[in-house]
Amino acid sequence: MASKTSLSGFPEWLPQERLVELHVLDTLRETFELHGFSSIETRAVETVDQLLRKGEIDKEVYGVSRLQEDEDGGPKEGQLALHFDLTVPFARYVVDNAGHLNFPFRRYQIQKVWRGERPQEGRAREFTQADIDVVGDGALPFRYDVEMALVIIDALSKLPIPEFVLRVNNRKLAEGFYRGIGLSDAPAVLREIDKLEKIGAQAVAANLIENVGATQDQADAALKLASIRTEDASFVEQVRALGVQDELLDEGLAELEEVVAEAVRRAPGKLVADLSIARGLDYYTGTVYETVLVGHEKLGSVCSGGRYESLASSGKRTFPGVGLSVGVTRLVSRILSQGLAEASRSVPTAVLISLVDEDSWSEAQDVAQQLRARGISCEVSASAAKFGKQIRHADRRGIPFVWFSTRDESGAVTHEVKDIRSGEQVPADPASWMPPTEDLRPSVGARVSSAE
Amino acid sequence: MASKTSLSGFPEWLPQERLVELHVLDTLRETFELHGFSSIETRAVETVDQLLRKGEIDKEVYGVSRLQEDEDGGPKEGQLALHFDLTVPFARYVVDNAGHLNFPFRRYQIQKVWRGERPQEGRAREFTQADIDVVGDGALPFRYDVEMALVIIDALSKLPIPEFVLRVNNRKLAEGFYRGIGLSDAPAVLREIDKLEKIGAQAVAANLIENVGATQDQADAALKLASIRTEDASFVEQVRALGVQDELLDEGLAELEEVVAEAVRRAPGKLVADLSIARGLDYYTGTVYETVLVGHEKLGSVCSGGRYESLASSGKRTFPGVGLSVGVTRLVSRILSQGLAEASRSVPTAVLISLVDEDSWSEAQDVAQQLRARGISCEVSASAAKFGKQIRHADRRGIPFVWFSTRDESGAVTHEVKDIRSGEQVPADPASWMPPTEDLRPSVGARVSSAE
Repeated sequence: MASKTSLSGFPEWLPQERLVELHVLDTLRETFELHGFSSIETRAVETVDQLLRKGEIDKEVYGVSRLQEDEDGGPKEGQLALHFDLTVPFARYVVDNAGHLNFPFRRYQIQKVWRGERPQEGRAREFTQADIDVVGDGALPFRYDVEMALVIIDALSKLPIPEFVLRVNNRKLAEGFYRGIGLSDAPAVLREIDKLEKIGAQAVAANLIENVGATQDQADAALKLASIRTEDASFVEQVRALGVQDELLDEGLAELEEVVAEAVRRAPGKLVADLSIARGLDYYTGTVYETVLVGHEKLGSVCSGGRYESLASSGKRTFPGVGLSVGVTRLVSRILSQGLAEASRSVPTAVLISLVDEDSWSEAQDVAQQLRARGISCEVSASAAKFGKQIRHADRRGIPFVWFSTRDESGAVTHEVKDIRSGEQVPADPASWMPPTEDLRPSVGARVSSAE
Repeated sequence: MASKTSLSGFPEWLPQERLVELHVLDTLRETFELHGFSSIETRAVETVDQLLRKGEIDKEVYGVSRLQEDEDGGPKEGQLALHFDLTVPFARYVVDNAGHLNFPFRRYQIQKVWRGERPQEGRAREFTQADIDVVGDGALPFRYDVEMALVIIDALSKLPIPEFVLRVNNRKLAEGFYRGIGLSDAPAVLREIDKLEKIGAQAVAANLIENVGATQDQADAALKLASIRTEDASFVEQVRALGVQDELLDEGLAELEEVVAEAVRRAPGKLVADLSIARGLDYYTGTVYETVLVGHEKLGSVCSGGRYESLASSGKRTFPGVGLSVGVTRLVSRILSQGLAEASRSVPTAVLISLVDEDSWSEAQDVAQQLRARGISCEVSASAAKFGKQIRHADRRGIPFVWFSTRDESGAVTHEVKDIRSGEQVPADPASWMPPTEDLRPSVGARVSSAE
């Protein structure tokens, strides 16, 4: 079913597939708005300097320059590049517009991003992200970390996707624990822990000893921490049982407990405390989230994020934030490739207004106009082919109804509408006829297995 | 009101401005779907070869390459570039996916495009276009040229913009006329006619004589044709009065008459036959459209398009098409800079659920969840500041209602909601309360002049 594309890593959808993507996008937008998030968009380009401030992802970035300028050679000061996520542009937007925004500022942002990585299943070079963030001016209550998890659970629950689990950890918890056992280079420890799923505990322990200078006991303790994973707040007890004392650890435990406790109460089973999650801990400063689809773990995280103590800063002013990013293209690709959902038809059109003769086109447009005024999508036949041919055209396009207007010898017009699936044809008034609700628009739902 | 942007030609909107843009985008989408157009998107990049087939716009094109590859120098075979319109990508999409599409294929496409031109009022380097096209396989009835004008008039009529006029001309009419008076290089004539508004009739006549080799009589006749502009089909008579005979001219006259006659009947005053319109005649093959806002003519065309006899081709197969492209960013920039419309508030939120004490956050979330289930956008306060402070927060964000849940000594909870504009506070049930319809969502309409 996937459409052909001549460029690897740049997926394009057929109209019927696009309806599934639109359904996902509309659902996310609606949910984010119900939670009080405002829409913004940022330009697709940032300056290279802005994008490479972290200095670690230059390989992935697409530079942009007018073809005429290209002869000058490599990247220049102030050169432009396509954004690779929506967080860096949002941080820049907040600083640019701080005087016009009310804090805490809640925004959602749904846009394409570009990364020059090697394309593979679940990883495209052009893909759509849907981000939500709350950003404060100077301070941002921890409560938002709890709220963001709830918003995302609400949003994902409405999508035609398999069961999902939000895995949550906390940078303070991890860093405090490592400090408590005498390992001060938390990022180095986390880089090793991050390989756990790939290379296993023994190899990670060896790396911790060799690369981070840990003792066998320290490595064992770090691995014990990473093995803790609970659906409720019992992780606190399990961490305490490891006997490590540290203030930052206490703070991290309390924060993670608050997130988990509220999720248990409100969305049981959707969120776990998973102390092996190392993702992004390099730049996040507290809560971190990632999300897997149950049974599709190898697809990777479909929704990730966390807390930044300083999402952006401008002079002495800092803007802490917490946010999550949904990988829309990754989700939609999986829905389509596995047939998890489909659109009920491929066109918005509910009714084809047929032509009885070539002179009736304008009158047919009158009928169409009356139907559209009531929100019914329709098209008018372009030529007065035999009715059978016009019906076949509707059938091929997936249009459920065909409208007939015929004039008798006295000049009186009779309107009828045919459901071409059942063959039933009934008199209908253009001023009042409505199709059944389920036929008004294409809907997206679990795939109905076809006869073939 | 316009937001700051640090990069000239790459406009960004504040949240309240973005609501105006969203309103325009939603209205266009809804109208296009009512007329049976399917949504598609194409990737932002095409190969440079694909984009430069016409060979005339290379200065405007932004090349794209991974920063790591950049050291190799200038453009390469197969190099990528950002699309500068949605027509070229759509043509490529039709060829790529022809086996999966039903013809005539009706699509709308709303995406950003990029052009490296010098930014000025109404001309950005990154901007959004909303295109509709119908494309046939081998043939496409002329009737679609009439229909496209009607669809666009319907769409533009629903936008918060000034009166507009669709100016329509026909390439066959112009080319046939020039041939009939002995001028065979129609594109050359049209390039001169195109300067009419800028340099005046006398200078154009001189250019026609000098650059195109016209006689004084030929130049006069060409200018007489270009001076014809009628709101009804009377242009036919005026052209006939010039006494030129040519088959192609007859064909063009008949086509343009069909477009104008239907528009007169259905949307009087919205469309004129304007025989001076030269725009795009180089590559269009029949009908051409452009659109100006009355009183804003200097802004340029806000919606243009036309008929291509061969939008795309693949081997022996050709795909004729007719389409129009709305300049969304140009329209929205004008709406915002002139205050033609505005959003009724800057946030989607209708209700702020206040906190009576720090422990009530989770219960406040319960109230929020009940309201959201009925489509009411709400947020929960992040801290139990004094009610006055929570109300001021709502006021600053433009949220019209604040919800209070208080518990008396017996433990019974009383819910009340306050309209902070009127100060009226009434008991309310989270399971049934609804705000007035006009407060449910931000709406976009003609600007209400403020008190200041």
